[in-house]
Amino acid sequence: MKRFIAYFAFIAAIVFLSAFTVMQKKKIIFFGDSITQAGVAPNGYITLLQQMLVKSGKDKAFDLIGAGIGGNKVYDLYLRLEEDVLSKKPGLVFIYVGINDVWHKRSFGTGTDPDKFERFYNKIIDKIQATGAKVVICTPTVVGEKKGYVNELDGDLNKYSEIVRQIAKNKKVELIDLHKTIIDYINTHNPENKNAGILTTDGVHMNDEGNRFLAEQFWGYIK
Amino acid sequence: MKRFIAYFAFIAAIVFLSAFTVMQKKKIIFFGDSITQAGVAPNGYITLLQQMLVKSGKDKAFDLIGAGIGGNKVYDLYLRLEEDVLSKKPGLVFIYVGINDVWHKRSFGTGTDPDKFERFYNKIIDKIQATGAKVVICTPTVVGEKKGYVNELDGDLNKYSEIVRQIAKNKKVELIDLHKTIIDYINTHNPENKNAGILTTDGVHMNDEGNRFLAEQFWGYIK
Amino acid sequence: MKRFIAYFAFIAAIVFLSAFTVMQKKKIIFFGDSITQAGVAPNGYITLLQQMLVKSGKDKAFDLIGAGIGGNKVYDLYLRLEEDVLSKKPGLVFIYVGINDVWHKRSFGTGTDPDKFERFYNKIIDKIQATGAKVVICTPTVVGEKKGYVNELDGDLNKYSEIVRQIAKNKKVELIDLHKTIIDYINTHNPENKNAGILTTDGVHMNDEGNRFLAEQFWGYIK
Amino acid sequence: MKRFIAYFAFIAAIVFLSAFTVMQKKKIIFFGDSITQAGVAPNGYITLLQQMLVKSGKDKAFDLIGAGIGGNKVYDLYLRLEEDVLSKKPGLVFIYVGINDVWHKRSFGTGTDPDKFERFYNKIIDKIQATGAKVVICTPTVVGEKKGYVNELDGDLNKYSEIVRQIAKNKKVELIDLHKTIIDYINTHNPENKNAGILTTDGVHMNDEGNRFLAEQFWGYIK
Repeated sequence: MKRFIAYFAFIAAIVFLSAFTVMQKKKIIFFGDSITQAGVAPNGYITLLQQMLVKSGKDKAFDLIGAGIGGNKVYDLYLRLEEDVLSKKPGLVFIYVGINDVWHKRSFGTGTDPDKFERFYNKIIDKIQATGAKVVICTPTVVGEKKGYVNELDGDLNKYSEIVRQIAKNKKVELIDLHKTIIDYINTHNPENKNAGILTTDGVHMNDEGNRFLAEQFWGYIK
Repeated sequence: MKRFIAYFAFIAAIVFLSAFTVMQKKKIIFFGDSITQAGVAPNGYITLLQQMLVKSGKDKAFDLIGAGIGGNKVYDLYLRLEEDVLSKKPGLVFIYVGINDVWHKRSFGTGTDPDKFERFYNKIIDKIQATGAKVVICTPTVVGEKKGYVNELDGDLNKYSEIVRQIAKNKKVELIDLHKTIIDYINTHNPENKNAGILTTDGVHMNDEGNRFLAEQFWGYIK
Repeated sequence: MKRFIAYFAFIAAIVFLSAFTVMQKKKIIFFGDSITQAGVAPNGYITLLQQMLVKSGKDKAFDLIGAGIGGNKVYDLYLRLEEDVLSKKPGLVFIYVGINDVWHKRSFGTGTDPDKFERFYNKIIDKIQATGAKVVICTPTVVGEKKGYVNELDGDLNKYSEIVRQIAKNKKVELIDLHKTIIDYINTHNPENKNAGILTTDGVHMNDEGNRFLAEQFWGYIK
Repeated sequence: MKRFIAYFAFIAAIVFLSAFTVMQKKKIIFFGDSITQAGVAPNGYITLLQQMLVKSGKDKAFDLIGAGIGGNKVYDLYLRLEEDVLSKKPGLVFIYVGINDVWHKRSFGTGTDPDKFERFYNKIIDKIQATGAKVVICTPTVVGEKKGYVNELDGDLNKYSEIVRQIAKNKKVELIDLHKTIIDYINTHNPENKNAGILTTDGVHMNDEGNRFLAEQFWGYIK
């Protein structure tokens, strides 16, 4: 009898632990600026990814967490890394930053020098990887949707994208080259060559189409 | 006898005046910034054009005049238009400006707004054309010679180039699209993807190769 | 009889011409930016000056003309000098410019270099004086109304004010040192140390009190 | 006998430990930018403070450590806080930063927004205080030595100085108001109103007189 009880308890424990393991979702954090902050809104790209998880029956496996704050540059992410990312013990972190680092040079005189952009970016990756979590990094999207590289910041955004591409190589982390993909998209989807309205509302922040576009870009890396 | 003398004097006068007309060279002014200021140096592009005129036996027909001043933006050209251009009664004026209008935004906070760039540019053309002289305009060259649109100001320089292209269309003046030509050249002549040293010494100012490049671009319009 | 008529006509003509001369008001132009553009609004400083002229019975002698355009810098004034000032044959021109030359450095990267500010300013004065008109020049007011020189652009605005003061000395034209006067006023009329609301609505553009302040500053020079 | 040896050893140990405690100097770190980096040079302000310690016989008590790096802004200090400050277990840390946070707005478009300047500054203080070390903070000195608030960045430097003054109040840490003291000094020691050469070599970096000036300012806080 005692043996039976012990045996039963053992089985129960296994079942319980398995259940617990199943219930323990993998946390995926989207770490970024205003575009990511808006990503958790009803039509935001993170909300869309969540819906895609439900549709494909994978929503039990992943917990998507938006950690975007408007106006953030790479060093702002570094400042709140512990509190907003590491303390949550994520399994995967997407870093999507860089627009303000370039844009604020012109609009406020407070952008980020390229060498410091790289230094802070690397340090963020190091600290996340030190916890055992995986990192996927993204090149910055756009400021202005005109075709043919005539938006004021096209060169500088591509320069910082190049830095991110190089970091991905050096750190051997996966890269979502949003900058390249969105530029390619615009070049074939902007017949009237408008400054905004293709994927963005204002040249920077995503409209519904832009959020769908982003969700598609991230989808393959949700694993 | 008197009649004969009068007749002879009349003929002589005609011959003399014709000769004078032949001797009256067509003045061609290069109106611009530091690149044009350096254009009259020993290996400068205007000096090279002068040598090409000599070689082709056309140096009797044209008088090439450099009117470039370092740091000049479009409104600086407007300020000295009367003194440095109109008062010299040119037959043709090349306008080659725009780099500082873009570059000084970043380096000094004193670039030129796009709408004002266009307004001053148009006014300069109007005033030159009002004298009967012909105008040929150029898009700005480069700040940085890296390939693939990763130089910080690539987008903005192309934006201002687009303004110049549009002005050429509207005003029906000839256009030398230096920006496009130099970008194309760099993309095929910069295997190590250096920031300078292909056509420029520092990413902006022309080296010997760059001056040869410019001379070739202008040559077809010397007429 | 005929002689009498001729005589009468002669006298009448003299009287009429004299009357006409009396009716010919002295034109006073206010040449500036958005603050001057708003100066002709119902409570604007030029409107107030007009009311002060009426009150003091001098409105028959002067014709006040507002020639302010929002966003104008010193070179914008130069571009429209002929059309908006010289062609109107003024007897007196107030020049009140400089805020955007400083402010746009930070907000758009398109301010004006100090040496070029001075060059354009001098050229404007020269061209006005060449018509025989008198010139009175003003230092730029403020961007931000905090006390104790803690507004971001306080130093630069004072630097450009110093240029204007120096021009006044060199050209021997009268100076209204608005910058100094407004700073002194703020230091004694801003107990809560607010950024706006003392003389301006937003730190730059005048509220009713600010327009009254300006009208008082200009009043003594309307002659 | 054994007891005696034990007793002797005990006494010896106490003496040795006391001696060791006396030998354990209090570490004082100077945390800053290029001015502090140059502070450890032969005539630098930290070197001068060291000489003052020797003269007054207090050099056994304090270990002065320079931790300045050229071009550093407040967030650069934050990035290297652990490695360059906390890991050294200082008893006192001087923070002297802010010039580049203001200056780089104009020169590179990469200054620091006021709200972020404050946020990073506070976080640095919190982390140092959490180790039990004392903090003394300084307002930024100058960019340009002209009198009467006509240096371009005078207003903005004073604005950031005001932020530092407020932080000192809020955090109840001691403040060295270098900005005020140097401005007062210049106003009475710059008869020819030069842009540099009073306390600096170039308007920013200290000459010998400037290093002496700084050493005097810090001296009273070395305790």
